[in-house]
Amino acid sequence: MDKVALDTITMIQQLNIAIGLAGTVAFAITAVLIVAAKGIDVFGATVMGLITAIGGGTLRDLILNEPVFWARNITYIWVAIGASLVTFWVLPFFTRREIYRGMLYVDALGVALFAIQAAHKVLALKFAWPLGPILLGIVTAVGGGLIRDVLAGNRTLLMSRDLYAVPVMLGCTAYVILMHYFPAGHLLINIGCILFIFVLRAASIFWGLRMPDWLSITPKQP
Amino acid sequence: MDKVALDTITMIQQLNIAIGLAGTVAFAITAVLIVAAKGIDVFGATVMGLITAIGGGTLRDLILNEPVFWARNITYIWVAIGASLVTFWVLPFFTRREIYRGMLYVDALGVALFAIQAAHKVLALKFAWPLGPILLGIVTAVGGGLIRDVLAGNRTLLMSRDLYAVPVMLGCTAYVILMHYFPAGHLLINIGCILFIFVLRAASIFWGLRMPDWLSITPKQP
Amino acid sequence: MDKVALDTITMIQQLNIAIGLAGTVAFAITAVLIVAAKGIDVFGATVMGLITAIGGGTLRDLILNEPVFWARNITYIWVAIGASLVTFWVLPFFTRREIYRGMLYVDALGVALFAIQAAHKVLALKFAWPLGPILLGIVTAVGGGLIRDVLAGNRTLLMSRDLYAVPVMLGCTAYVILMHYFPAGHLLINIGCILFIFVLRAASIFWGLRMPDWLSITPKQP
Repeated sequence: MDKVALDTITMIQQLNIAIGLAGTVAFAITAVLIVAAKGIDVFGATVMGLITAIGGGTLRDLILNEPVFWARNITYIWVAIGASLVTFWVLPFFTRREIYRGMLYVDALGVALFAIQAAHKVLALKFAWPLGPILLGIVTAVGGGLIRDVLAGNRTLLMSRDLYAVPVMLGCTAYVILMHYFPAGHLLINIGCILFIFVLRAASIFWGLRMPDWLSITPKQP
Repeated sequence: MDKVALDTITMIQQLNIAIGLAGTVAFAITAVLIVAAKGIDVFGATVMGLITAIGGGTLRDLILNEPVFWARNITYIWVAIGASLVTFWVLPFFTRREIYRGMLYVDALGVALFAIQAAHKVLALKFAWPLGPILLGIVTAVGGGLIRDVLAGNRTLLMSRDLYAVPVMLGCTAYVILMHYFPAGHLLINIGCILFIFVLRAASIFWGLRMPDWLSITPKQP
Repeated sequence: MDKVALDTITMIQQLNIAIGLAGTVAFAITAVLIVAAKGIDVFGATVMGLITAIGGGTLRDLILNEPVFWARNITYIWVAIGASLVTFWVLPFFTRREIYRGMLYVDALGVALFAIQAAHKVLALKFAWPLGPILLGIVTAVGGGLIRDVLAGNRTLLMSRDLYAVPVMLGCTAYVILMHYFPAGHLLINIGCILFIFVLRAASIFWGLRMPDWLSITPKQP
């Protein structure tokens, strides 16, 4: 392989790690903010931050039968623990509602980054194409949050009509289709799909968008 | 191998896939009916249907350290998604209580099919004999439903005195014992144990059978 | 290898199995006592005892991508099932509160044994050093209890200020550090760290120690 190609691969690998670390920080922060609302100690908060940050990717790797991503590079764990601890200590200095709202956008970025990074990995492994990259994109993006909510005794996002996982599904579906027909444009497609998920999720936070009534069932007994 | 033996193997493989798909449909339908009672959107319902249908088998394959069954044949996923979507849209046209009761029998068939199919697979792998086929038969049959109930915030079947997993345990135990002493009768034993689980579960639905008091602990404080 | 070295290895292996079985019994007993408080039948209680006893180690082995420990030696499963059944039947003969309190100390021993045994295994595999042995020590020691609480609909230990997992974290951290600087003293370090976790946990049961206020967040809205 020539030097330029090697440089490009190295750059993409480093970009992937940077993306993963940014998502890790976002997930750890929002997790601590969410569990703090119920009262928790510093140990529980850190574990929750860590589980939320690495849980989805760990589930993905278990299903792929690949080594878990943080076994090779424990930086993800240090970063998740560090971000959780900082969030825990800094928490009382902020008005919680404002921070929380701002952090939803950070979380949206984490969701978008993790989803497309996972779809990229699963597509490269040709695992269960074409549904595998979509399913495991969703698992990676929301799996950690689901485990956190179950352990914290919170209602999970699956039972809410918030547009949280739906942008992920749409973005990963677009990713699989575009990569199939335009494999040469992979860099543009990666960036485009991350932006697509982020914008759709950010819009649904900003305007409070929810699943419309005709796509939902409302229980009859109150 | 001669042609007849090859034909038999092909037939059994196809039967296995047909059994798996029938169970998948049954599990997806009942899952959507169960979560619809709490109110959910079409995305959440489909994810719940999918998780219920493939969750148990996925847990089994992770524990066996085998590739997950749906990675080789994503038909299971298409079928689970399709059955969930159809159930979601058709839901309002039915009186819910009647449908739900009928679907319990369909679910009982899914439970029986999945349990013996799993016991068969685990036995062939000689995994943790003789308890492995029984434990993983139970995991495969009820694992998806457990994950669904946890994610939906419902009481899990383990905390109820319904005879749901007990027929599975008895059927898988019978399967392991019979296969040990009469390996030649494997086709009959497979069908017999599936019927045994189905009939026992159907009877407990029909007559509302529950674990007797002397096999249960009732909490003293109300 | 000479005979003495082989004998030592055999002895350590047998000690490891004995430690694992003692922890298994402890976890199965406390699990049945905990779920019995909510009312459960003998099947549910046994499944809960089994999940609590082998759940943490199973999670650890899945993450390590190693065969699950009970696949090679199903004695763990027989012992967990046996201990659960005995506890279920013996339950009514004891005043529950006293038994429960005594069993917390047995559970503390199980926690200490499982944690250091796991840290030992993960360290030997050089998995995600230095955080891997600590994280998977915690997962092994508390993972089964977390799954039990989620399936039983109980508040998980992560949301409580009880000193349950914190002694495990401290003990496993000490283990990794000591083993790094004094590898020759491995037997002493193993025993010392098990005792350290047990004593810290036992002290926190006896004096009702909890995380101090300055390490905890209390929700503002009641």
